[in-house]
Amino acid sequence: MITSHNGPQPADFTDVRATNLAVVLRFVRENAPCSRADIAASTGLNKATVSSLVADLIDRRLLRETGLTENRVGRPATMLVLDGSPYAAIGVEVNVDYITAVAVDLKGEELLNWRRAFPGSTASPGEAVTAVAAIAKRVVSRMTRESRQVLGLTVAVPGLIDGDGAVHVAPNLGWHDVDLRGDLVKALRDPAYPVLVDNDANLAAVAEYRFGPHGDVSDLVYVTGEVGVGAGVVMDGRLRRGGHGYSGEIGHIEVDPSGPDCRCGRRGCLEAVAGIGAILARTAPGVSPIELEHEVDEVVRRARKDDPEILALLDSVGRGLGKGVAIAANLLNPEVVVLGGYYVPLGPWLIAPAEEEMLRRSLAPGGGGCELVVSTLAHRAAALGAAARVLDSVDSGRLPARP
Amino acid sequence: MITSHNGPQPADFTDVRATNLAVVLRFVRENAPCSRADIAASTGLNKATVSSLVADLIDRRLLRETGLTENRVGRPATMLVLDGSPYAAIGVEVNVDYITAVAVDLKGEELLNWRRAFPGSTASPGEAVTAVAAIAKRVVSRMTRESRQVLGLTVAVPGLIDGDGAVHVAPNLGWHDVDLRGDLVKALRDPAYPVLVDNDANLAAVAEYRFGPHGDVSDLVYVTGEVGVGAGVVMDGRLRRGGHGYSGEIGHIEVDPSGPDCRCGRRGCLEAVAGIGAILARTAPGVSPIELEHEVDEVVRRARKDDPEILALLDSVGRGLGKGVAIAANLLNPEVVVLGGYYVPLGPWLIAPAEEEMLRRSLAPGGGGCELVVSTLAHRAAALGAAARVLDSVDSGRLPARP
Repeated sequence: MITSHNGPQPADFTDVRATNLAVVLRFVRENAPCSRADIAASTGLNKATVSSLVADLIDRRLLRETGLTENRVGRPATMLVLDGSPYAAIGVEVNVDYITAVAVDLKGEELLNWRRAFPGSTASPGEAVTAVAAIAKRVVSRMTRESRQVLGLTVAVPGLIDGDGAVHVAPNLGWHDVDLRGDLVKALRDPAYPVLVDNDANLAAVAEYRFGPHGDVSDLVYVTGEVGVGAGVVMDGRLRRGGHGYSGEIGHIEVDPSGPDCRCGRRGCLEAVAGIGAILARTAPGVSPIELEHEVDEVVRRARKDDPEILALLDSVGRGLGKGVAIAANLLNPEVVVLGGYYVPLGPWLIAPAEEEMLRRSLAPGGGGCELVVSTLAHRAAALGAAARVLDSVDSGRLPARP
Repeated sequence: MITSHNGPQPADFTDVRATNLAVVLRFVRENAPCSRADIAASTGLNKATVSSLVADLIDRRLLRETGLTENRVGRPATMLVLDGSPYAAIGVEVNVDYITAVAVDLKGEELLNWRRAFPGSTASPGEAVTAVAAIAKRVVSRMTRESRQVLGLTVAVPGLIDGDGAVHVAPNLGWHDVDLRGDLVKALRDPAYPVLVDNDANLAAVAEYRFGPHGDVSDLVYVTGEVGVGAGVVMDGRLRRGGHGYSGEIGHIEVDPSGPDCRCGRRGCLEAVAGIGAILARTAPGVSPIELEHEVDEVVRRARKDDPEILALLDSVGRGLGKGVAIAANLLNPEVVVLGGYYVPLGPWLIAPAEEEMLRRSLAPGGGGCELVVSTLAHRAAALGAAARVLDSVDSGRLPARP
C-alpha cells in the first residue's frame, strides 16, 4: 500500500480564519500593491471573506490602503500594501569575533544594523548571554522609542542547535549543551515577544534566498566564511534542516586526509583546510579573535599588491574550498553556492581556483549549472536571516495582537 | 522587501475540480477505509462537493464502496477504499547487468516482478531501447489480458537524465546524450500511456520512502549498490532533485585521493573505492557484467565461511562506504541511509565498518541520529519507484479517462 506524500494538499481547517489571514498577508507581501479583487481571484477566497480578512489585517496595522487605484475598466479599486510601521523583528548573531544585531520592519526593510567586536572564543556562555541580552535590550528600546512593537528575537549561533533553542555543541565558541534560549529568556526577564535560537548558516541561507540577488533560484547553498565553516541548504525553495536539524555541516567533511588538524578533533576537515583560520595561521599565527577583521584586511591589502606568498596561499585555500563546493554540487546540485563572511573580501582571489576545482570534480558537466558567488549581505546575513525567521512566524499565522 | 516562500499556501484554483478529485483520491489512499463524511471533515470540502467528487472517482473505478460501515452512533456510513482493479502502472529499470520490470495496481500492490540478465555495459543504446521496449510490451500485454488499463511507463537509468527524458551521461552504460524517451516512444509506436525516464537512485529513494519499513521518517538517503553508486535524496518527505535534476551524485565524490581510478575519469571516487566493482576487481578481475550476480554470490559464500581475505576486503570496502555515508550525514542529516542493490547481500559484512566510519566522521554526536540499513526491496527498488512515479501523476490530478 502506497502512502502518497506528493501532490496537492488540502489546508488544515482547524483554524481557518488564522490560516486565511496568513494567506492574505502573504499574497500582499508577494503582490503589493494589489486590490481585494486580486486577492479573491488568486486565492479562491470569496470577496466577502477577503473584505473581512483585509479589515482585520488593517485593524492590526499589518496592511494599509494606498491612495493608488488600479488602472482598469469599471469602478476603481483601492490598492493594498503591507503596513507594519508599528512593528519590528530583531535578529542577533553571536560569533567567534563579533555580535551583529539587525532590526527589520514587516516588509523586511532594514531599520538598524549594528556590529560589535566580541571575544566569542574566550567568553563563557554566561558572558555571551549577558552580551546578547544587552544588545537586544538596546535594540528593543530603540524600537520602542520609534513606537514599534517587537514581533520577536532570533539569535544565530555557529553550532548544532536543538528544537528548544539549546546549543548542543558550538566547536569554535567552545560550548557544549548550553540552554541559550532558556538563559536568554531569563536575562531578558520573560519578554512579551518570542525568543528563538537557530544555526547561523541556516539563517544566513534563508536571508540569502530572500534578500540576495538570485532571482528565480530555488536551490541554493550558503557557506559561512567565519572562523567556522558551515552551510545552509535551501532546496525547492525551503531551508532543509534534515531529520534532527543538523544538516549543512560541510565544514567537518574531510577534504584532505593529510590536511591540518581541525578544532573539532578530526583532521583535514574543510574548515581546517579552507576556513579563515587556515589563512591566518600562515599570515598571523596566534592572532586573537578580536583582531580577525583587521588581519583579514591585511591579507586583502597584500593580495591587492600581488604579494606572491599571499596569492599562492589564497589559491591553495580556494582549491580546498572548491573541494567542499564540489561535494555540495554533486550531492545537492544547487543553482548557486554563496560564499559569506570573510570569504566576501577574499572572493576576488578565492572564487577562480574554487570554481576550477568544483568544475573538475562535478560529475554533471559545467558543475550541473552551479554558479559560485560571494554574498552581497556579508556579515549581516545570519542576523538578517534571524529577523526573517521572526517574520516567517507572522506569515505562518502567528499574528501579533492588535496594537 | 522580503518575498516569503514559507507558510500556508492557497491552492491553485485554475482547475479546482481536478485538484479536488486528487485531494479526495489521496485522502482515501492514506485513510481508507473512510466515509464521505470523514473526507469532508478532514479536507474542508463541503459534503455535497465530496459526494459529487466521490461519484466521479467511483465512475472512473478509482474508488469503490465496501460492504463495511462505520461503527458509530446515527446512520451508518458507507466506507470507501481505493479500487484501481482496472489499472496498472509499469516501472522498468535498465542497468549494467540486468533489466527489471514491475507492475503495480493503484494501491501500489505488486502485480508482476520480472528480472532478466542484460549486458548493459556492452549493449548499444539502440539495443537497450529494443530490450526495454520488448519487456515493456510483454508487461503491457499481460496487463491487457488481465483487463487492466496501463496508466504509464517509467524507465529507470543509472545516469544524469534531463527533464525531457534524455540521458545526458550514464558512465557505466557508456551512454552520452541518448534520447531514451523519444526512442522508446518510437519503439513502442506512440503508446496511449505516458512514458517517462528518470534516474535509478532517485526512483529507488522514492520506492524506499513509500514501500520501505521506515515509519515516520521524512529524511532519507538511498544509495544504489550496483556497478554504479548513486544516491536519491528525500528531505522533508519529498525527493529533492536539485536545480537541474542532478542531485545525489555521491558516487563521484572523492573519498580517497590515493584511491583507484574511476570509470568517470577521476580518481578515488566513492564508486571506485566502495562500489561492487571494487570488490570484484579483487575476487574476479575481468568478470563479465553478466556474471556479476553469480560472483557476488561467491563473495557472500566465502564471507560466510570466514575467509580472512574476503573479510578484510569487505571491511575495507565498508570503511570506504562509511566515508560516503558520513558526507551525506554531515551535509543532509538523514534519519536513515538505505543501502540497496548488491549492498543488500553484502550488508552483514559492510554495515558495521561503514557505520563505525560514519559515526567517527559526523560532527553531530551519534551521526546526528542517522541509521544505516540495507534495503528490503533489493533490486526491485528502482523499478518499483518508477511505477510509483506513474501513480504520483495520478495523485497529482492527471486522472485516467473513464474506462
